[in-house]
Amino acid sequence: MMKISGFELDSNKKVTDLVKDMMTIGFQATHVSQALDILKSAKKDKSTVFLSCTSNMVSSGLREIIAQLCKYKLLDVIITSTGSVEEDIMKTKGDFELGVFNADDSSLHKKGINRIGNIFVNNKHYIKFEEFATQLLTSLNKKKRVYSPSEIIAEMGARINDEDSFLYWCNKNSIPVFCPGITDGAFGLNVYFFKKKHPEFIIDVTKDMGRLADITLIADSTAGIFLGGGIAKHHTIGVNILRDGLDYAIYISTATEGDGSLSGARPKEAVTWGKINEKAKSVHIEGDASIIFPLIAVCMVDIYGVRKA
Amino acid sequence: MMKISGFELDSNKKVTDLVKDMMTIGFQATHVSQALDILKSAKKDKSTVFLSCTSNMVSSGLREIIAQLCKYKLLDVIITSTGSVEEDIMKTKGDFELGVFNADDSSLHKKGINRIGNIFVNNKHYIKFEEFATQLLTSLNKKKRVYSPSEIIAEMGARINDEDSFLYWCNKNSIPVFCPGITDGAFGLNVYFFKKKHPEFIIDVTKDMGRLADITLIADSTAGIFLGGGIAKHHTIGVNILRDGLDYAIYISTATEGDGSLSGARPKEAVTWGKINEKAKSVHIEGDASIIFPLIAVCMVDIYGVRKA
Amino acid sequence: MMKISGFELDSNKKVTDLVKDMMTIGFQATHVSQALDILKSAKKDKSTVFLSCTSNMVSSGLREIIAQLCKYKLLDVIITSTGSVEEDIMKTKGDFELGVFNADDSSLHKKGINRIGNIFVNNKHYIKFEEFATQLLTSLNKKKRVYSPSEIIAEMGARINDEDSFLYWCNKNSIPVFCPGITDGAFGLNVYFFKKKHPEFIIDVTKDMGRLADITLIADSTAGIFLGGGIAKHHTIGVNILRDGLDYAIYISTATEGDGSLSGARPKEAVTWGKINEKAKSVHIEGDASIIFPLIAVCMVDIYGVRKA
Amino acid sequence: MMKISGFELDSNKKVTDLVKDMMTIGFQATHVSQALDILKSAKKDKSTVFLSCTSNMVSSGLREIIAQLCKYKLLDVIITSTGSVEEDIMKTKGDFELGVFNADDSSLHKKGINRIGNIFVNNKHYIKFEEFATQLLTSLNKKKRVYSPSEIIAEMGARINDEDSFLYWCNKNSIPVFCPGITDGAFGLNVYFFKKKHPEFIIDVTKDMGRLADITLIADSTAGIFLGGGIAKHHTIGVNILRDGLDYAIYISTATEGDGSLSGARPKEAVTWGKINEKAKSVHIEGDASIIFPLIAVCMVDIYGVRKA
Repeated sequence: MMKISGFELDSNKKVTDLVKDMMTIGFQATHVSQALDILKSAKKDKSTVFLSCTSNMVSSGLREIIAQLCKYKLLDVIITSTGSVEEDIMKTKGDFELGVFNADDSSLHKKGINRIGNIFVNNKHYIKFEEFATQLLTSLNKKKRVYSPSEIIAEMGARINDEDSFLYWCNKNSIPVFCPGITDGAFGLNVYFFKKKHPEFIIDVTKDMGRLADITLIADSTAGIFLGGGIAKHHTIGVNILRDGLDYAIYISTATEGDGSLSGARPKEAVTWGKINEKAKSVHIEGDASIIFPLIAVCMVDIYGVRKA
Repeated sequence: MMKISGFELDSNKKVTDLVKDMMTIGFQATHVSQALDILKSAKKDKSTVFLSCTSNMVSSGLREIIAQLCKYKLLDVIITSTGSVEEDIMKTKGDFELGVFNADDSSLHKKGINRIGNIFVNNKHYIKFEEFATQLLTSLNKKKRVYSPSEIIAEMGARINDEDSFLYWCNKNSIPVFCPGITDGAFGLNVYFFKKKHPEFIIDVTKDMGRLADITLIADSTAGIFLGGGIAKHHTIGVNILRDGLDYAIYISTATEGDGSLSGARPKEAVTWGKINEKAKSVHIEGDASIIFPLIAVCMVDIYGVRKA
Repeated sequence: MMKISGFELDSNKKVTDLVKDMMTIGFQATHVSQALDILKSAKKDKSTVFLSCTSNMVSSGLREIIAQLCKYKLLDVIITSTGSVEEDIMKTKGDFELGVFNADDSSLHKKGINRIGNIFVNNKHYIKFEEFATQLLTSLNKKKRVYSPSEIIAEMGARINDEDSFLYWCNKNSIPVFCPGITDGAFGLNVYFFKKKHPEFIIDVTKDMGRLADITLIADSTAGIFLGGGIAKHHTIGVNILRDGLDYAIYISTATEGDGSLSGARPKEAVTWGKINEKAKSVHIEGDASIIFPLIAVCMVDIYGVRKA
Repeated sequence: MMKISGFELDSNKKVTDLVKDMMTIGFQATHVSQALDILKSAKKDKSTVFLSCTSNMVSSGLREIIAQLCKYKLLDVIITSTGSVEEDIMKTKGDFELGVFNADDSSLHKKGINRIGNIFVNNKHYIKFEEFATQLLTSLNKKKRVYSPSEIIAEMGARINDEDSFLYWCNKNSIPVFCPGITDGAFGLNVYFFKKKHPEFIIDVTKDMGRLADITLIADSTAGIFLGGGIAKHHTIGVNILRDGLDYAIYISTATEGDGSLSGARPKEAVTWGKINEKAKSVHIEGDASIIFPLIAVCMVDIYGVRKA
């Protein structure tokens, strides 16, 4: 057994060393450090790495961190919700700004500012996104009638030129982005208005199932990193039923287990479903991904030996 | 201002009186009581009532409560995730059982038991659902090629005969059930296998946008009851952008605000987006819907004056 | 095993029936219902009942509910923090008022209003309490030099005449109130000013240990109801080490387990310490006591067959 | 306004740079970075620094981190609960071990292992502490009859020789440690047994009020770092009422605001009480201190320019 202990305080301490030292601190710090060990094993095992994330992660500065992981090809599949996709595009056209949680929300509304926690998003970003989406849909609709969400998202990535965008790198590096609930978001409203004039346009969500299943089935082993819960989380573990479950799983979430929600369910619950393998290495880190994922992402580039070009 | 106070303990106390008395207890009890007032106003205002719920609500005994609200036509629209839909069907074929959170999950897996918090679901229910889904898909595919999620779900409701099912009553009473992420769940896997042989089968998620938008736009006023967060929550508030936001909103959730997640966002954040109207009456009740929604549902039948046949 | 199911919605439903029916709803609703069964067993077993509560419970309308349980002698020992004691007294002199969580706090401060969640407390209550405390201390100091917290609190109860006060009933019915951290609160500041002039005045916290230990040791069996965590919770389970742990335990708390805090620790952790017996019946209900305890208190008067005079 | 953005992933990244970069990530990461700015201002302002912590912090590896901050004299006052004090002593005599949350707790109990989250503590440590406490009490009782908690704790620090202990450094560097609820813990039980034979022994909790008040009143300005909530938190903000509130406050906590608990109350609530000054710089970081405090502690040694001897 390991002795519980702290570490020497040093103003030059490296993040990678801190995360290593967190192992013996106990509580959730230990879990952060265990995530490191899981990533090392997953790397050795040549796991196909799934990133599942909710849209607020892309609203935040984690977007550029995810983008770098895509650039360095450390992620193989992304499963997310519509907000992630549309906000990644919006950010190529204008900045989101740091605000406060405790805002005067009626006043923000009057000013045309939308709030996501302590992040402020100006309405004009949505107007620019609408232009982008309308052009995209018009162009897509000329080619064929039936699209899967991942096809549409890849086309989005192809239409932007921004190294801070994860969609840019996903398209560049052929990393598929799945979004099973793609009409839920501003993009859904854009499609609604487009479809009024172009009722022939179809997004067939069943089309992506085969593509996602194939990736999952041919993998030597699979690893999942989960930032938050929701449909992205369930879809990621759900498809892994096809192969007796994920071999590695890192959950990062603030959701509670006691209400029986999928978002709050721990890895051990997924074992009963065969969504995570009985023999898998897994960890659940309780906490805000905005703090925890940066620690892990720095360790990832260390583990995978990424060198800046 | 109201004086903080308790109430007289009486072993015969009625639920409706308790909820009324909770107003002056403070903290979340006050919020439960405020939900009552919101419902009364919404009734007076002839609001179209949206129920948004995550799938664990239907896993639980809230399913039969929701079913009764549909039977009594107290709900006008349901927006939910795939788990709700498939588990409602499964329960028409066999029981879910009360288990424990702290189970030996490897052992459950070996026994073919899937765990949802402290609810146990036998694999055989999934096998029966697969049969049901395959027959449904085969039959649907003979009629036409392109379906919206709400069409498929209505057909599910038409194929069962169980007064405990909310899909049964939704079909009976023409209450549409929207499920923007319909391939996320066992049903999605069923569709995947079906589509291998029938690639022509399409679920067009864009098709439901118009139907949902129309309901929202023609409403005199709109009210939302939210059990949990996720895609169901966002879809419900999202479509209400089209009409300057919900007029009444009751959020019940365990999710935290501080991580910037949609699931944890309070009504006031939705005001910045125009998803809830600036003048709306709204409340956020922190807590587990399994405890809180029964209190509110009993009050709903009281407010709406439902009489048992 | 029990089938997961809801119950028939009935606007006349009684609270006691609702709590019974919650057993099969799943998630935390099941836990509420299990608390009922624990109380029934504890009654049969003639358990000495400890109530542990944090001060916000007395800030809220739970105060009058606790007072009634003391009036009916359904509680045998109370362990709490200073805020509970001083606010119970304050409420005999003026009302706390229902406010909102999301207040303009600088403005409240300017108006002399203190906020406890959504409860507003006027500064004048503290001034009245100071008068009460100074008179009390002056009087006590004339009699002897060394007091235990429980002696001081009993004397407080003797000096008020308010049937809504739990201290009133505790004094009336000889229910000891323990407060191991008695200087933490406004009363502590009152004592600080008093002691400047009367350095001889002493509150000996070690003096209560024997009294509390004796009650615990002579009990046939012990049951604990825990509203919130903190020092009150730890003190209650801690003293039960002396007798191989509590025989019955009902935890009601919003605190999370994952940070290793005592407040968030589940009953099973207390088993390792011998603070709860290995064979004890226990349950942890995640949620806000302002909603949950009223449900349980109504059931308590039913179980114990209290008849109003 | 600041643009929301991530940072360049670099395997050599320093902790101090990461925390700086967290400012623009949003959500709780921003709050961590704001804590840094608060500490810089507090340093410039020569604030008297209070550390408030719950006992699980000392159970964890944060103990050695706190010890170093005491060694470097970066903390001026510590307010905590009994568990912190006794576990710091225990760790001078034997190791706490890393375990798991999801343990077989009956089996642990049989083995004489006590669990604190995922930290395992052998019963033998408590036996050693009992010896230590008995010797201490015997020795103290020979000198005089009435002690304050802080006097007893200082004497504990004087009797150990362990540079990993915060009590060792607090004694060495004359940093007072306040513990208003000192009988709540194993030490309380030790005192109970001791007092049976030595009824004359007294711990007067009122005695520390003057000492703590004096420190607070003479300070140029005051800053509080809060790891968790409970009595330690309330005592720290409570005494600052005497001087119009803390000038700087950093709350780190997992507790929720919605239940009206002191543990979950945000800094803005404390403003209404005058416990935090209206003009104070403050931040609330939602999350587990085991992850967050190491980040901040590394930055503290950087800000205060500590050089290792």
